[in-house]
Amino acid sequence: MSEYRKTSLAPMLSVRHGKQALEFYKEALAAQVLECLESNDSVVARLSIQGAEFWIADESPDHKNFSPETLGGATTRLVLTVSDPDAFFDRAIAAGAKPVEPVQDQNYGWRLGRVMDPYGHHWEIGRPLR
Amino acid sequence: MSEYRKTSLAPMLSVRHGKQALEFYKEALAAQVLECLESNDSVVARLSIQGAEFWIADESPDHKNFSPETLGGATTRLVLTVSDPDAFFDRAIAAGAKPVEPVQDQNYGWRLGRVMDPYGHHWEIGRPLR
Repeated sequence: MSEYRKTSLAPMLSVRHGKQALEFYKEALAAQVLECLESNDSVVARLSIQGAEFWIADESPDHKNFSPETLGGATTRLVLTVSDPDAFFDRAIAAGAKPVEPVQDQNYGWRLGRVMDPYGHHWEIGRPLR
Repeated sequence: MSEYRKTSLAPMLSVRHGKQALEFYKEALAAQVLECLESNDSVVARLSIQGAEFWIADESPDHKNFSPETLGGATTRLVLTVSDPDAFFDRAIAAGAKPVEPVQDQNYGWRLGRVMDPYGHHWEIGRPLR
């Protein structure tokens, strides 16, 4: 397979209450909405955190798209690398995320903390230490 | 918060049998291993598909990291954008992934298919149509 300059990988988070979740991620993670498809009571949206993209979509168990609330946990963590993890962590908590691990220097060479958002997704917010 | 040129978001997939999973992703998605930390029977690895990065790690329910096998489904889809989704799809199936949706032109302007890998994670493999 030949190289493709636009190869990319973006997680799509299944959530309950997608429209509320969209507002949460805008507030908690300073996410910008790049695309938003609304239909009836559901939403599919593509968001960007300073150029780092992800999607959210209302869950649809019939299509094997399960929210963490439905399954009782999350199967993927979101590793968000930013210049100031402390500020991002505090912003997420202020918006309603719950701390799982405080931001601290880790023995594997990162400064990193972890939160669970109100929709059950887990974010590891950090940066490599100098 | 000021802009940071290295802001990035990479999913970390919780799996059972991480060492086997690592071999699978190398084969199925032509992933290169950028980092690999092994300890006892578990592994944490950072991989790249033509520059698009993700992590895999053995599950640890005590730390709220659940595999799809444990929860009976996945809470995040991985949207992989590549030049030739048909070839990537076929390669993933040949390596042991199961088709969920065949690759086809979608009415939302993408050519896209979906597979479930042997560890329960779901990949949407596609590209925007011209």
